[in-house]
Amino acid sequence: MSYFPQVEKVRYEGPETKNMFAFRHYDPAEMVMGKTMKEHLRFAIAYWHTMTQDGSDPFGKPTNQRDWEAAAPMETARNRVEAFFEILTKLDVEYFCFHDVDIAPEGDSLEEFFKNIDEITDLIKEKMDQTGIKLLWNTANMFSHPRFVNGAASSNNAEVFAYSAAQVKKGLDISKKLGGENYVFWGGREGYESLLNTDMKFEQDNIARLFKMAVAYAESIGHKVQFLIEPKPKEPTKHQYDFDAATTMAFIQKYDLENDFKLNLEANHATLAGHTFEHELNVARCYDALGSIDANQGDMLLGWDTDEFPTNIYDTALAMYEILENGGIAPGGINFDSKVRRSSFEMDDLLLAHIAGMDTFARGLKAAAKLKEDRFFDELKEERYRSYTEGIGSKIVAGEENLETLTAYALEHDEIVMTSSHLEYVKSRFNDYLV
Amino acid sequence: MSYFPQVEKVRYEGPETKNMFAFRHYDPAEMVMGKTMKEHLRFAIAYWHTMTQDGSDPFGKPTNQRDWEAAAPMETARNRVEAFFEILTKLDVEYFCFHDVDIAPEGDSLEEFFKNIDEITDLIKEKMDQTGIKLLWNTANMFSHPRFVNGAASSNNAEVFAYSAAQVKKGLDISKKLGGENYVFWGGREGYESLLNTDMKFEQDNIARLFKMAVAYAESIGHKVQFLIEPKPKEPTKHQYDFDAATTMAFIQKYDLENDFKLNLEANHATLAGHTFEHELNVARCYDALGSIDANQGDMLLGWDTDEFPTNIYDTALAMYEILENGGIAPGGINFDSKVRRSSFEMDDLLLAHIAGMDTFARGLKAAAKLKEDRFFDELKEERYRSYTEGIGSKIVAGEENLETLTAYALEHDEIVMTSSHLEYVKSRFNDYLV
Amino acid sequence: MSYFPQVEKVRYEGPETKNMFAFRHYDPAEMVMGKTMKEHLRFAIAYWHTMTQDGSDPFGKPTNQRDWEAAAPMETARNRVEAFFEILTKLDVEYFCFHDVDIAPEGDSLEEFFKNIDEITDLIKEKMDQTGIKLLWNTANMFSHPRFVNGAASSNNAEVFAYSAAQVKKGLDISKKLGGENYVFWGGREGYESLLNTDMKFEQDNIARLFKMAVAYAESIGHKVQFLIEPKPKEPTKHQYDFDAATTMAFIQKYDLENDFKLNLEANHATLAGHTFEHELNVARCYDALGSIDANQGDMLLGWDTDEFPTNIYDTALAMYEILENGGIAPGGINFDSKVRRSSFEMDDLLLAHIAGMDTFARGLKAAAKLKEDRFFDELKEERYRSYTEGIGSKIVAGEENLETLTAYALEHDEIVMTSSHLEYVKSRFNDYLV
Amino acid sequence: MSYFPQVEKVRYEGPETKNMFAFRHYDPAEMVMGKTMKEHLRFAIAYWHTMTQDGSDPFGKPTNQRDWEAAAPMETARNRVEAFFEILTKLDVEYFCFHDVDIAPEGDSLEEFFKNIDEITDLIKEKMDQTGIKLLWNTANMFSHPRFVNGAASSNNAEVFAYSAAQVKKGLDISKKLGGENYVFWGGREGYESLLNTDMKFEQDNIARLFKMAVAYAESIGHKVQFLIEPKPKEPTKHQYDFDAATTMAFIQKYDLENDFKLNLEANHATLAGHTFEHELNVARCYDALGSIDANQGDMLLGWDTDEFPTNIYDTALAMYEILENGGIAPGGINFDSKVRRSSFEMDDLLLAHIAGMDTFARGLKAAAKLKEDRFFDELKEERYRSYTEGIGSKIVAGEENLETLTAYALEHDEIVMTSSHLEYVKSRFNDYLV
Repeated sequence: MSYFPQVEKVRYEGPETKNMFAFRHYDPAEMVMGKTMKEHLRFAIAYWHTMTQDGSDPFGKPTNQRDWEAAAPMETARNRVEAFFEILTKLDVEYFCFHDVDIAPEGDSLEEFFKNIDEITDLIKEKMDQTGIKLLWNTANMFSHPRFVNGAASSNNAEVFAYSAAQVKKGLDISKKLGGENYVFWGGREGYESLLNTDMKFEQDNIARLFKMAVAYAESIGHKVQFLIEPKPKEPTKHQYDFDAATTMAFIQKYDLENDFKLNLEANHATLAGHTFEHELNVARCYDALGSIDANQGDMLLGWDTDEFPTNIYDTALAMYEILENGGIAPGGINFDSKVRRSSFEMDDLLLAHIAGMDTFARGLKAAAKLKEDRFFDELKEERYRSYTEGIGSKIVAGEENLETLTAYALEHDEIVMTSSHLEYVKSRFNDYLV
Repeated sequence: MSYFPQVEKVRYEGPETKNMFAFRHYDPAEMVMGKTMKEHLRFAIAYWHTMTQDGSDPFGKPTNQRDWEAAAPMETARNRVEAFFEILTKLDVEYFCFHDVDIAPEGDSLEEFFKNIDEITDLIKEKMDQTGIKLLWNTANMFSHPRFVNGAASSNNAEVFAYSAAQVKKGLDISKKLGGENYVFWGGREGYESLLNTDMKFEQDNIARLFKMAVAYAESIGHKVQFLIEPKPKEPTKHQYDFDAATTMAFIQKYDLENDFKLNLEANHATLAGHTFEHELNVARCYDALGSIDANQGDMLLGWDTDEFPTNIYDTALAMYEILENGGIAPGGINFDSKVRRSSFEMDDLLLAHIAGMDTFARGLKAAAKLKEDRFFDELKEERYRSYTEGIGSKIVAGEENLETLTAYALEHDEIVMTSSHLEYVKSRFNDYLV
Repeated sequence: MSYFPQVEKVRYEGPETKNMFAFRHYDPAEMVMGKTMKEHLRFAIAYWHTMTQDGSDPFGKPTNQRDWEAAAPMETARNRVEAFFEILTKLDVEYFCFHDVDIAPEGDSLEEFFKNIDEITDLIKEKMDQTGIKLLWNTANMFSHPRFVNGAASSNNAEVFAYSAAQVKKGLDISKKLGGENYVFWGGREGYESLLNTDMKFEQDNIARLFKMAVAYAESIGHKVQFLIEPKPKEPTKHQYDFDAATTMAFIQKYDLENDFKLNLEANHATLAGHTFEHELNVARCYDALGSIDANQGDMLLGWDTDEFPTNIYDTALAMYEILENGGIAPGGINFDSKVRRSSFEMDDLLLAHIAGMDTFARGLKAAAKLKEDRFFDELKEERYRSYTEGIGSKIVAGEENLETLTAYALEHDEIVMTSSHLEYVKSRFNDYLV
Repeated sequence: MSYFPQVEKVRYEGPETKNMFAFRHYDPAEMVMGKTMKEHLRFAIAYWHTMTQDGSDPFGKPTNQRDWEAAAPMETARNRVEAFFEILTKLDVEYFCFHDVDIAPEGDSLEEFFKNIDEITDLIKEKMDQTGIKLLWNTANMFSHPRFVNGAASSNNAEVFAYSAAQVKKGLDISKKLGGENYVFWGGREGYESLLNTDMKFEQDNIARLFKMAVAYAESIGHKVQFLIEPKPKEPTKHQYDFDAATTMAFIQKYDLENDFKLNLEANHATLAGHTFEHELNVARCYDALGSIDANQGDMLLGWDTDEFPTNIYDTALAMYEILENGGIAPGGINFDSKVRRSSFEMDDLLLAHIAGMDTFARGLKAAAKLKEDRFFDELKEERYRSYTEGIGSKIVAGEENLETLTAYALEHDEIVMTSSHLEYVKSRFNDYLV
């Protein structure tokens, strides 16, 4: 059976097409800087938004029409696998991501939950083998159930820590079973509602304890996987410990986790933290920790995570530029952590929205590649920092100067001439790359 | 001569006094938890706001009436020393802080600037000897002059790096001369206006280079001083590298600066970064890096640094609680990095505003001490985290568990009972401490 | 049967009590400025937060333990009436508020919904007669059901307008039946998700059409009720038309609704719009349109409506000051549009949280009354604006001047002397009222 | 003499040009929807940013190199006129705007100030006659001088009101002299620093008094001019009364100023108020009050007015769409209320930055025109609101329905079918117009 019988496969038809179910900019096979667009972009789809999100919000009931919903939870779960791989196939997307609770119902006990996971991952594995589609990453949802009301590894209740550990173990087991390339931690409740009753240091120590157990376990089962932490400053929790990329790097360094952990960065989380997405990607690169990205966009005038499909070409051009600078995003990918607007509730919107996001990233990639090929930013920066490649600058960089020698130099050279950055001109020229 | 002839000395007169120039809550000699309030609070006054701030803003000209302003810059500088020590003495404040450019005019050359600094610091030293007043910290202003348009250590121009190094050397020399207890770096222009033309990693490497030179130089002159970095997320620069406490700790760890650097945290910078002040203090404590504080308050509905004198008793109670938890703030202090409102332009407002701030911190200290003595938060947290002191919790903390043992435990204990935090009740009870 | 058998009635026991279920500050019978506290405060409880809120959030499932939940919707509805009046009675709260969907299940048709409402309002009326408890206001929930995905009166679908009209008619019918003193409109979906597909003017015209129909209908059934509009800038909708008090007054004036409509103002909505609560109350007073208030508080660092129980004494003191200035809030009241934190999920928290809110407002009332009695702000303002009571100022106010006469005056009087506002001193003195 | 000798005149050379001093998108003579681009865009340049802004910020000294600065204020003033008309001419910009203090020094008395204004406006008039350049609007700066510390018309000091009245009279006199098409009020200090000492209603009454005097005076001298109010929510003042478009419309209606006042809307002020620019333009259109625009852009992550030159093509496309919907912006215009970044301090940057802004608006105009010509949004909305053109919808709009008839209808039609907005698809298609 098919959930989208009216669409055979979404293909590239160019910007002039009137076919809603066609790519206007994304051509998987198009070569860009020596690789296909598909190789560059490594698109993934998030199970939670695409398969389980129902369109409800804090003031409204579900709106989404989803033909796979059935009366029995396990039947729904099986239908979703079918529908998901149809979507992945029709969009020609090679990767997917999920939380444990997305794919299988929790049932009445942990044992039943694990049994349900086993059954559904058998089904998923079968589909993966048939289609060649791969698991970018999976994770454990340790934030929705009431037991996580005060956190998972950071819960004040040690039994919740134990329960979380069990979920992580299972997560790593299925990661191995499905050949997952990364494993993600998003600490949606690892933080505090109020500092008044919180021991922040103790809670963070506990989080690090769980992370180290996870690394040890993955090693013990011989599963080479890249661990990723996904920062977010707040929501649902008032303050989340992995506030942003830099905060998370402070944590990673403090607990000596650099060898095993990188970052999974999300555009909307960046802006909620007061940063641009490209800033967060750049910070990660400074620490050699750019792992993967969750592609979406927020609304700069709203204070919550809207998780919109990315349609802003400035954002995708600058994100793709960072990824090119990073030498690509593998073994990470570009996962659409995006949900359709509540008013886009029809089945077709799932395809239309992903097409919109993929086209926008394709435009971003093309713009970024052109910027690289023209060495637009490269030349700008070479010129701008030239003083460090010669004279006193090169000696500073080489570590040959100190406060005394530099004071002597400065006393002789205190009439410094600066040159303009012409930033308005730079921005105007940059616009011409966004075609 | 006196600049405030109408006020002899500001004394504690209790809450009922009608004397505007009296403390209503701050009694320097009052014992609180075994120390005088003065010993706890270690108040300092900032030269820049109190002596040089003129009341101008981006849309308005100076409003402040300051009787020490003279035609000749050096005469003004000398008058300010006189007036400053009068203010410190009349308010019974033991510490002060300054930037190099606050105390002495820059003149026409670096050489002249240094000469001016030498002359004025001679005068300051004399006053310090007479009064017993001490230098909490000094710093170099490396952000106001046009040469710093693109940063100081992070400038794209190596000559600016050299100039900055000279200022830091001089800063450390006068720190030694005046017995400074701390030395601060605030990177007001260490950041970027636009990421488009910025090499963030290179710029941060250079900042670390300067910091290491400073540490080496202080050691070479035998000056034991605590180095402090003051985070701020933005303003004047679009993005500043020392965004907040955690970001700065990531930097400090990356460049192995933990042994020499702690944090100087400001209330208004905390809120601009999306945090409460107590959060930032707590983060610093997690990293054993709480150095000193810049006391002020912002307006939560405004997006810039208003640097208001602290008058909110919630904020000072929670800040003082963190300081008590830290075992005190020494060798740091509570520096009023606060400026009078533009409409409080009379000379008297300088005294009135500091009195307001000191009274508010005194109320905060008393509330915090009462909370400690009652073990209000201590008992709350002991009860809340009790599960980690026994059974599976204590074994997790002891490092005796792993994912497999915890999974076995969780399969047996998957019916977890949580208890309410009664947070509304806690907040209501907390209110009763703010008397 | 009783849902809170352990509590007989919450009584005032003073600040020293250790009884969690006692008022420490609110004494209903205490006289303040010639009226009892109960008469001043006119507390109301919101059905939705107290009876139907389940503790879920966008990332988490329900946590709240609510003993009245039953398998059959109508049984739950009847249980809730029982429990609600127990809460109102035990807290000695005289007023309540509800949406239509809070009290009765929607059933399978509009007809069934109305039938359910009739049955439950019979029950409510009975309880009201027994207890003397009164209806502050009711409203129609025209935002939760999927039909309202694009608004109610502002929906693009005329059938949704008709459906909304039916709900409003029913709302006015039950308002009459229960003797409601006000009737509220909150346009949670009256706004836009995107301006790209929105005709803002047409949508606002339609909202005004519905409002005029409501006024006409209330008149036709002889029901004198004060209509109120509740502003909110956003959430759930990206932009809501009733953004804040001033925006709503622009709308009210444009459509000539001044005679029938006032404002219902909520603290957390004020801050989401970039204002303080006291600002919104003051704006309403400027337009003689302060109708009623929704008491809660937000978190200034979070961008969504947290609807916390009010515990900040600054906020309640300033809100109560505005209410005293207004000559009281009747026929409006102080409705706790507040929900327990997700971690305060026990039944007891419902009582504890309301006690916290009521105590905080009692403290606010006492502070405000003392400020009035001392004429603290009155004298400040009389002094500050004195120049308008004499000379040129009084002639300006009297309308006796024009640009030419004032120019002549100014040419003669261009050396203007301003005096300081001493704002820091004012704020410090204000603190002493918050005891 | 010439201040920009290296540039003869900036001409359109197309997107491929390497000439920095050429338009790549703006071709004044190009026909778009029946008018030239120049006629559509009605560009103006702001005297303050372009001629007097010095590059200082609250933490930094001036950086801007401006060859027209001289020792004597009146010489500088005369040089600026020369330079300004050179810039206007070389950029082919037809309009300009100024505050009184921008063009002439205030001198030592109001009389001297007026004399200086007379002399400089003689010079300006001469230049206008020579070049055909016209005055879009002028205004009085009633916010920079210390006398305005507490406002102008809203000052607590009646003498400040009188002084302001004199400035407004002079402003209208020179508006008449120079043939100004609009006259603007921006109330940078009309608001409050603290509500504690403010009588908001009295202050707003006074503002309305001044506005009515201005209208009467303009009429008395026979000068037909469109009065404009420019909203801004804050900065420099903590709260400004003309918060946003809707707030200002509430004020205009309250004081019956609709016949004489429209709005001058600024992009960066819109975002500071929590709105998009296109939202503010649309609100103004709803009230038939779109007067003129101040073109710039803010930084969505910064909380102050950055006044950047507009370079975002989404923003200019949507702004130009609103202007086309409005039937054009005349007698208003598109005034660049934009300043060069502090790091763009060279003389050339003045030209480069305006070119960037003009090119971005040209792209916006072309995108908007294409959207109109394709009827892209028109068709979308016609389809979306179709239900109001027939059946029950048309009767609602015609005023033929009431709550009773609609209830009867709704009881028969309670199974409402909504259709998806396909918003992601709409946004993706919209992207294709931004070429």
